[in-house]
Amino acid sequence: MRNETVDPYLLTPGPITTSLTTKQAMLHDWGSWDADFNAMTGELCRRLLALANAEDSHVCVPVQGSGSFAVEATLGTLVPRDGKVLVLMNGAYGQRIGKSLSYMGRGYVAIDKGDYAPPSPEEVAEALAADSAISHVALVFCETSSGILNPVAEIAEVVKAAGRSLIIDAMSAFGALPVDAGELEFDALISAANKCIEGVPGFGYALIRRPILEGAEGNAHSLCLDLYDQWRYMERTGQWRFTPPTHVVAAFLQALREHEAEGGVAGRLARYTRNRDRTVAGLRDLGFRTLLEDRWFSPVITTFLSPTHANFDFRSFYDRLKAKGYIIYPGKLTQAESFRIGHIGQLHDVQIDGLLAAVTETLDELQVDLHL
Amino acid sequence: MRNETVDPYLLTPGPITTSLTTKQAMLHDWGSWDADFNAMTGELCRRLLALANAEDSHVCVPVQGSGSFAVEATLGTLVPRDGKVLVLMNGAYGQRIGKSLSYMGRGYVAIDKGDYAPPSPEEVAEALAADSAISHVALVFCETSSGILNPVAEIAEVVKAAGRSLIIDAMSAFGALPVDAGELEFDALISAANKCIEGVPGFGYALIRRPILEGAEGNAHSLCLDLYDQWRYMERTGQWRFTPPTHVVAAFLQALREHEAEGGVAGRLARYTRNRDRTVAGLRDLGFRTLLEDRWFSPVITTFLSPTHANFDFRSFYDRLKAKGYIIYPGKLTQAESFRIGHIGQLHDVQIDGLLAAVTETLDELQVDLHL
Ligand SMILES: Cc1ncc(COP(=O)(O)O)c(C=O)c1O
Ligand SMILES: Cc1ncc(COP(=O)(O)O)c(C=O)c1O
Repeated sequence: MRNETVDPYLLTPGPITTSLTTKQAMLHDWGSWDADFNAMTGELCRRLLALANAEDSHVCVPVQGSGSFAVEATLGTLVPRDGKVLVLMNGAYGQRIGKSLSYMGRGYVAIDKGDYAPPSPEEVAEALAADSAISHVALVFCETSSGILNPVAEIAEVVKAAGRSLIIDAMSAFGALPVDAGELEFDALISAANKCIEGVPGFGYALIRRPILEGAEGNAHSLCLDLYDQWRYMERTGQWRFTPPTHVVAAFLQALREHEAEGGVAGRLARYTRNRDRTVAGLRDLGFRTLLEDRWFSPVITTFLSPTHANFDFRSFYDRLKAKGYIIYPGKLTQAESFRIGHIGQLHDVQIDGLLAAVTETLDELQVDLHL
Repeated sequence: MRNETVDPYLLTPGPITTSLTTKQAMLHDWGSWDADFNAMTGELCRRLLALANAEDSHVCVPVQGSGSFAVEATLGTLVPRDGKVLVLMNGAYGQRIGKSLSYMGRGYVAIDKGDYAPPSPEEVAEALAADSAISHVALVFCETSSGILNPVAEIAEVVKAAGRSLIIDAMSAFGALPVDAGELEFDALISAANKCIEGVPGFGYALIRRPILEGAEGNAHSLCLDLYDQWRYMERTGQWRFTPPTHVVAAFLQALREHEAEGGVAGRLARYTRNRDRTVAGLRDLGFRTLLEDRWFSPVITTFLSPTHANFDFRSFYDRLKAKGYIIYPGKLTQAESFRIGHIGQLHDVQIDGLLAAVTETLDELQVDLHL
């Protein structure tokens, strides 16, 4: 068995490096029908709602699968067959929302800003004013493909003013970026177990405004992805409709407790922001450049442009960093060569120091001096 | 943290009691984009195909979510929008297949035998002869809701003779009941991580005949449940399309190795059969009656009729057994009061002895003597 201490650190947007105690929560087997496990599901949902100050307005519906499953399930459950969605795209995850809607035969229009430029509240307002058939707006909170933090609050204002329903993919944001349902008007907000709460992957969840979900019976295109049915069943029985990923749920509950112990959203935001600032400063010192200007940065992940230096090659850069114990992430831009470094998960000063030392060493080995 | 040794044993059809080494495989974090993890996915698929002697004829496509997700994904991917499925129902899981098809708007007819009676090859042949629009037949290998082992080989013959495509939900059977793709003609066979291979829950998989999957582009009703797209992406990159449940995958790989070490399907079938025979004999000695005649038994799970004795109440029976360390399973019949006892998972003679002692004790406590 590999030793815990020699696992490489994951500088990625998830799966991330989790605490040993979170992983140890998986050293048990639970009956998915049993009251002990139902109590865990209940606590998990209560904690997630409390994180968003949404206990009175929303319900929490977990769903098996990855984050994309939770996004597709939310869209399929909330958008009626004759609904029409305005999808705000500035990267891979906004595009995936469009793709999901195409599969399920729901109409949509997109404002597509390309690789990373954020949609502006003004253009959203215009699009809504121009097309009264649009019933929903779908927006990505932190567009993980570039790392940009979209102007969620401003867009939510505009959507609210136009009387449309807002669905937020907050996959990589929730748990680290503040969300207050009393201030931010959303009908659904989606995330997954293996992001800023720092659990392991295996399910996603949506916080959905209660009357909206109550009215969503019969919309879904898929039995497994029907969040209305999942919710009703859970309300009635305390159980998941189909077999839940019991061990992943146990790990997530432990992760939620550790999230609270670290000071909740504020504590996590502070640590991730520090990780980011130290990583960006360190890499800039070495001569790397970020894709985005600082004001668009998220505390989740940052995209760096691949240097044009003749000796720089992402594959060897990646492999050498991995050999030193740090796994970084490839870029996901269509235009520019890039790579990404994540700031979330169990990463503290010592790991960021280690990362920066490893990058310095690797550039030496590759004989890449970005200051020349 | 609860101590491993005091977890109750799960006498259920999954999640089941797994080995400590299987759970310990989850004490690491993997990058889902990394080559180390891709190698694990590759080994997992190769091992599953080998278990069914299907390396040359079929491909293995894992999919995130529970077993029902894998069933729905297989149906949605393989049955074209103008296809028609003959669904053989004799319990909850056959019925769920029908429900999935309704959601996705695929036509189907059912032979519904009620709570447990098996479909006969003759009536399947007749139904296929009578309706040339039927393109597919869907069948549950072991109908876990009663525990019955359906006559899969005989029905496969009939489906083959009629030139239709056979999809088998082998959720609770695969890994313990022999499946040889050279003898059993199936286009798809579905199972999940937390059944007879004895992994933890979090994904399912389908073994699909290669040319059938190659021709399935564009069928799927759901992006996340599109096994064609999942497979193509995996072939090209070695990665899962969306974030895989990395820890669950690692546990499953460990479970597959332990499955092999126990003698593969034959070894497991022998142990489960012995568990069943000892459990059934012990409970019959105490005066319990099984739902099914012995010839329909599976080595997976057995349904017992709830005694009509005035002092017997499932809830207290369950709670007392649980307090003694054994979690049993409620019944799922529409007609008769019943409960189920599973035979799969890390259960050996000592656990069956313990279970029988606990049942004896519990009946005493409840003052239920079934021989009077
Ligand atoms: C914003 C966003 N949406 C959706 C997803 C998809 O999640 P998953 O890979 O778990 O399906 C991700 C994954 O990183 C994401 O960051
Ligand atoms: C035969 C059969 N099909 C489907 C399922 C559904 O699997 P899941 O609960 O993982 O969705 C089960 C679960 O026990 C099963 O036994």
